[in-house]
Amino acid sequence: MERLFIANRGEIAVRVIRSARELGLRTVLAVSEPDEKSRAAQLADEYRLIGPAPASKSYLDQSAVLAAALDSGCDAVHPGYGFLSENARFAAAVMEAGLTWVGPSPEAIELMGDKARARDAARRAGVPILKGSEGAVGHGEDLLAEGREIGYPLVVKASAGGGGRGIRLVATEQELVPTVEVAQAEARAAFGSADVYLERFLGRARHVEVQILGDGQDAIHLGDRDCSMQRRQQKILEEAPAPALPDAVRERIQQSSVELARECHYRGLGTVEFLYDPESHEAAFIEMNTRLQVEHPVTEMVTGLDLVREQLLVAGEGKLPLSQDQVQFRGHAFEFRLNAEDPASGFMPSPGTLERLDWPGGPGVRIDSGFVAGSVVAPFYDSLLAKLIVWDASRAEAIARSLRALDEVDVEGVKTTLPLLTALIQRPELRDVEHHSKFIETTPGLLGDVA
Amino acid sequence: MERLFIANRGEIAVRVIRSARELGLRTVLAVSEPDEKSRAAQLADEYRLIGPAPASKSYLDQSAVLAAALDSGCDAVHPGYGFLSENARFAAAVMEAGLTWVGPSPEAIELMGDKARARDAARRAGVPILKGSEGAVGHGEDLLAEGREIGYPLVVKASAGGGGRGIRLVATEQELVPTVEVAQAEARAAFGSADVYLERFLGRARHVEVQILGDGQDAIHLGDRDCSMQRRQQKILEEAPAPALPDAVRERIQQSSVELARECHYRGLGTVEFLYDPESHEAAFIEMNTRLQVEHPVTEMVTGLDLVREQLLVAGEGKLPLSQDQVQFRGHAFEFRLNAEDPASGFMPSPGTLERLDWPGGPGVRIDSGFVAGSVVAPFYDSLLAKLIVWDASRAEAIARSLRALDEVDVEGVKTTLPLLTALIQRPELRDVEHHSKFIETTPGLLGDVA
Repeated sequence: MERLFIANRGEIAVRVIRSARELGLRTVLAVSEPDEKSRAAQLADEYRLIGPAPASKSYLDQSAVLAAALDSGCDAVHPGYGFLSENARFAAAVMEAGLTWVGPSPEAIELMGDKARARDAARRAGVPILKGSEGAVGHGEDLLAEGREIGYPLVVKASAGGGGRGIRLVATEQELVPTVEVAQAEARAAFGSADVYLERFLGRARHVEVQILGDGQDAIHLGDRDCSMQRRQQKILEEAPAPALPDAVRERIQQSSVELARECHYRGLGTVEFLYDPESHEAAFIEMNTRLQVEHPVTEMVTGLDLVREQLLVAGEGKLPLSQDQVQFRGHAFEFRLNAEDPASGFMPSPGTLERLDWPGGPGVRIDSGFVAGSVVAPFYDSLLAKLIVWDASRAEAIARSLRALDEVDVEGVKTTLPLLTALIQRPELRDVEHHSKFIETTPGLLGDVA
Repeated sequence: MERLFIANRGEIAVRVIRSARELGLRTVLAVSEPDEKSRAAQLADEYRLIGPAPASKSYLDQSAVLAAALDSGCDAVHPGYGFLSENARFAAAVMEAGLTWVGPSPEAIELMGDKARARDAARRAGVPILKGSEGAVGHGEDLLAEGREIGYPLVVKASAGGGGRGIRLVATEQELVPTVEVAQAEARAAFGSADVYLERFLGRARHVEVQILGDGQDAIHLGDRDCSMQRRQQKILEEAPAPALPDAVRERIQQSSVELARECHYRGLGTVEFLYDPESHEAAFIEMNTRLQVEHPVTEMVTGLDLVREQLLVAGEGKLPLSQDQVQFRGHAFEFRLNAEDPASGFMPSPGTLERLDWPGGPGVRIDSGFVAGSVVAPFYDSLLAKLIVWDASRAEAIARSLRALDEVDVEGVKTTLPLLTALIQRPELRDVEHHSKFIETTPGLLGDVA
């Protein structure tokens, strides 16, 4: 691997450029018209214009992206996250064109993209799963029997969904048949497949996930993370390691995630997501993300590893660059997603020019951003302004340092979620790990205070 | 300890504020008139004006600083580095006023401030020292005999000197008597004491130092650093751990530095400095700095410790917060001192307004700076704009990451030493640890290329 084509934008494009440069690779960046002056475009060795906004006409245009990669003489493609990163057809097209795909095989992407098949694979690998229907649901009495077997409340999930999309709650037996019918119709419209399945509902669960790295034969884990602090299923604050997880649960989800990766001949970075119910101490598989995660830096902070470097090394050399024994954990890390959104207006995106952009510094503080002072936050893309990552020797110290660091952030020109992040890090529920994935929505004072 | 008075400015004031805030301390900052709008003044809870520039009328004015500390209701004083940090009289005055002095006792400062007494203390503690005169030199034949015993070339050092000041080289016996006379006259004028001593001269030596932490009874070390890359005795690039140091030498300087700290009942952070001759594998004591060092962050990066936090904890609680066993080392770190100086004009200070100030980010990158975009670099103080600190798992990887990070720095409005730093990190001599403390002065192409 010598020339890497980066099919993404924003902070993750900057992130990939950094690791590639450190490995001595040349970088060529795909850019849309509004991104021509971006920080990523400045930092890449070269860039190629692939089309205008919105993303469907550029970053999601498979043939435009592939043509640019080939035309620029690159020998590998890094898809970042989002956009085409979990598109099995695109991965296959890249490989058929003779380029290295920095990611898992199209088969692995496809398997994990089908939630019912993924669930079956997880079950076979010994990954704990929620009680639910085996494969797609039945009809009439069969369906009602399945519901009774699982118990209420339960959720109906689209097999082709993911990332929280295509999920409906069923509180009582009376709602089951009509909800399944609506969910099937919606799934057909949204994902092209009407397949849905049933699953037990965990109410106040935490979101826990295991980072794995495989080479197609063997796999290791790089520890776990907690991403329970979410707003409308979007992660806002993540940490590593997952706090307040019993040793046996941690061991089980780590080992079974490695087993799942091995069984599906997984290559590259992947994340196995779980719900964890702190009352029953039950962990249950949600899905596997077949790409680099937004929250990967917290894992980097506690392991000292550069995950993008490992990803590139696995893709280039086809072998795990390190063994499980070589993965050492130290301290605790938080990641804060600072979005250009207005907390006072229901978190509407707040595009504009960044008149001022002063970041915190000092020990244990890291910034990953696709912007510099003077950059324009365009309305066409996600509103992630920067990820503020904070490490310290213990979780309590990392919380104190996070508050200090958040307090040093100074952004002018756009509204940001800084007040929300500052409120969250001071919450006793976070300190005591009593929060859960619905904490933000079900804590009205929280948003009221900051808005 | 509840309210901390910070008797310093610039990046080190910011650094101390950060650790103090994380410990829940209130901070009051001493500021001179030109520093009223500084980043440190913004970040402190409060600030007190102590006088105008130059430093002699503010930061070095002992009574003004102490009066401000008392008036602001603080119960402790952190002196940072430079200014009053190694002034035994000031330390004593702070303690007599009933405040906690965040540093060693006045006696320890005084002992280490007298180079001949410090050398004796080092000898007693088993610290390797260079062959030299015992105490102050004699006259006439006695002096010549001392010179013959040590061998030529040798150096004459002022007992009250330090930091490279008050040192003269003697190449042959003929020069000895006149050089000693000149050195004595200079020492009297500069330091108020004519005492000088002789020491063997090490030519192409590296500068190696050991970080220690003591509580007045016991002491531990936090590893070593190499600061060989200097320009006119000013450190420019530092790293931890010291590379290419034989295990036996590393062990000896670490253990004997701890012994020295124990013997002089050392409290707080201190650094024992050595010259290391890579040909003879000989290490020799230079001096002990009785304060926080500019280059302390490289030690923080490899130990995961917050040295200012440890310093405040020792000062507040009077006990070592951790044992030697708890100090774990991981990876390799470099620090780059980015100065507002013009390489093309003999490194003249380059004051001005910072029109743009974009720092690198991503994994393993840390910035410690007293400036933000729009700040004014005043001509009254040192020209340190920022310390760029870079960590990675190995020295070779840390070098690659450093180059990547330096390349992301974007400063407009003042000239900086960035071209020198970028040239240094790419030098094969640095990579192969073949540099020494005179490397920059004796490598003409280096400065020629960047000017």
